[in-house]
Amino acid sequence: MSYERDNIRRMAGYSSGEQPLDPGTAKLNTNENPYPASPRVQAVLDAFTIDGLRRYPPPNADGFRRAAADLHGVAPDNILPTRGGDELLRLVITTFVDPHDTIAMSDPTYSLYPVLSQVQDARTLRIPLNEDWSLPADFAAQANKAGAKLTFVVNPHAPSGRLLDVDAIRRIADELDGLLLLDEAYVDFIEPAAAYNAVPLIEAFDNIVILRSLSKGYSLAGLRFGYGIGPTSLIEPMRTKTRDSYNLDAISQQLAEAAIRDQGWSRETWRKVREQRARLRQDLAELGIETPESAGNFLLATVPEALPPAREIYETLKDQGILVRYFDADRLSDKLRISIGTESENDRLVAALIKLANG
Amino acid sequence: MSYERDNIRRMAGYSSGEQPLDPGTAKLNTNENPYPASPRVQAVLDAFTIDGLRRYPPPNADGFRRAAADLHGVAPDNILPTRGGDELLRLVITTFVDPHDTIAMSDPTYSLYPVLSQVQDARTLRIPLNEDWSLPADFAAQANKAGAKLTFVVNPHAPSGRLLDVDAIRRIADELDGLLLLDEAYVDFIEPAAAYNAVPLIEAFDNIVILRSLSKGYSLAGLRFGYGIGPTSLIEPMRTKTRDSYNLDAISQQLAEAAIRDQGWSRETWRKVREQRARLRQDLAELGIETPESAGNFLLATVPEALPPAREIYETLKDQGILVRYFDADRLSDKLRISIGTESENDRLVAALIKLANG
Repeated sequence: MSYERDNIRRMAGYSSGEQPLDPGTAKLNTNENPYPASPRVQAVLDAFTIDGLRRYPPPNADGFRRAAADLHGVAPDNILPTRGGDELLRLVITTFVDPHDTIAMSDPTYSLYPVLSQVQDARTLRIPLNEDWSLPADFAAQANKAGAKLTFVVNPHAPSGRLLDVDAIRRIADELDGLLLLDEAYVDFIEPAAAYNAVPLIEAFDNIVILRSLSKGYSLAGLRFGYGIGPTSLIEPMRTKTRDSYNLDAISQQLAEAAIRDQGWSRETWRKVREQRARLRQDLAELGIETPESAGNFLLATVPEALPPAREIYETLKDQGILVRYFDADRLSDKLRISIGTESENDRLVAALIKLANG
Repeated sequence: MSYERDNIRRMAGYSSGEQPLDPGTAKLNTNENPYPASPRVQAVLDAFTIDGLRRYPPPNADGFRRAAADLHGVAPDNILPTRGGDELLRLVITTFVDPHDTIAMSDPTYSLYPVLSQVQDARTLRIPLNEDWSLPADFAAQANKAGAKLTFVVNPHAPSGRLLDVDAIRRIADELDGLLLLDEAYVDFIEPAAAYNAVPLIEAFDNIVILRSLSKGYSLAGLRFGYGIGPTSLIEPMRTKTRDSYNLDAISQQLAEAAIRDQGWSRETWRKVREQRARLRQDLAELGIETPESAGNFLLATVPEALPPAREIYETLKDQGILVRYFDADRLSDKLRISIGTESENDRLVAALIKLANG
């Protein structure tokens, strides 16, 4: 007999991108930062000893909370450090969404959202994006009409890279009857000229939680560290009731704090990523491969008819040690999501595509 | 307005033991191993660089799974590595227990169990232990009668330290209609002469998951690493559907693997803990403080009438930099749970108690 709950038995799990072991792979499939983390993170790691592991870690990661509060100009009680952004996504559902409640999201979006909704036995409302990947004008109205308790918006959008401005987010938060989880996993790669900053919205609204991740912006995908920023009325129940006690180990707390305290280092990696993003976008355009303007560290490339189908290109590139992401999903099956790599990785990709185009 | 689910609003969170910052504290309150982790763990930590953190970690912690499978003579697919044992406790509930289902447990037991039950909006059935902390003969029958989907048994029992033998566990697994989560967080401190090994039960029964933790036995409470051992029919849905993707960071995977591959080092710490446990038990007995025989790395001390009340002793010891655990709960409020410390920590405690007794 199966002991699984019905909703678990019926569902499929999340498919993460491939994690190849070969260090020679140009890994452009899961949006890691191509540049390393700050040397100050290395220094903290070097100083860490097993004496710091014998006892339980600081239960509330107060050192990190202070650092994140300083960075964003909020109070430590507005910060909830989590094991990657994924833990925060789970916690907002566990804390605020009952089974059979509705969770709204755009379609397409980060493919983990509907999986987490299924785990909670919640209903998933998928609201199709416009042709240009913008949110439909009645996005919040559709969520309200379905009685959504929680709405996920990822901004910059994945997988298109499209950026919503803060005014648009404000209007959505204002209009929504339920909570808004604003997933800013890729926020660090927005052009500074856009002066994007959604954090002040947590003062104006009691229904918004912002997700941040150290995976991309701080080159620490392997550390599993993220955090939520929100009003204390939303942060407190997650911190004191629903998260696993001691959710963050002692090493990651110290490394994450060092990482976000060294903004200068990471900013320089963001600048280089943006520079490479512009260059790669231009190179792809010259091959007839169009990509919408992206504020993230990736491009969503539509494969033109002159080239082999997207899935075939994905396979050919993989055979050559170049991994990009292919989604076998509605509106995405003629596209490839390409993470921005180092200059030499991007060159390798472009050279392989030129060969394909001439093949 | 509050956005919390009703069950979350109604509940209180888990209270973890105090984690003092003063390194001079004799910390005998949360059952850490008083001896450090293996030097091989330190060597792996020393070799780790931030290059190993830029990319996502191995999603299934296969290196650790192989090491744990080797240790227990099972297949890697019988192993589910988790962020501390606590993540496994949550996952068995998320995967196998619907809201309003019943979760059974002894009373008293590990105080996190009822909290996790409340988070899932499940019913909690508390089955009182006998006077000597043994399980009542009709324990499984009571769980079945309440329709329990899941039953928690911690063995050795916390907070008493009482050990259930494998035959008794076998009978419970056989009799239960639902799942049995056998929490072996303290298994490493059982006398080797007892030849305790419950792992073969996962071959005989399809309804048992065993919890192991590296927090106590391997001196790595700060690392947050544990694992489940069970039949693949129970392990697979947790691994592929309900756990957070990338639940384990890259550093902890390598350190945990090094720790369990160095059994010799940890066994020596277990031997020393047992030696200190016997000594401390004797010293307490001489003060008229009785403790049941314990198979864990702690003693449950009943404060005799000749001494001040338990809560007062807890406070007095705390003022002197000695932390023990006081539970303000039924059947425990005249007791103190004392973790086994190093020889000098235990001496410090006994000296303070002698002073109190003569006080």
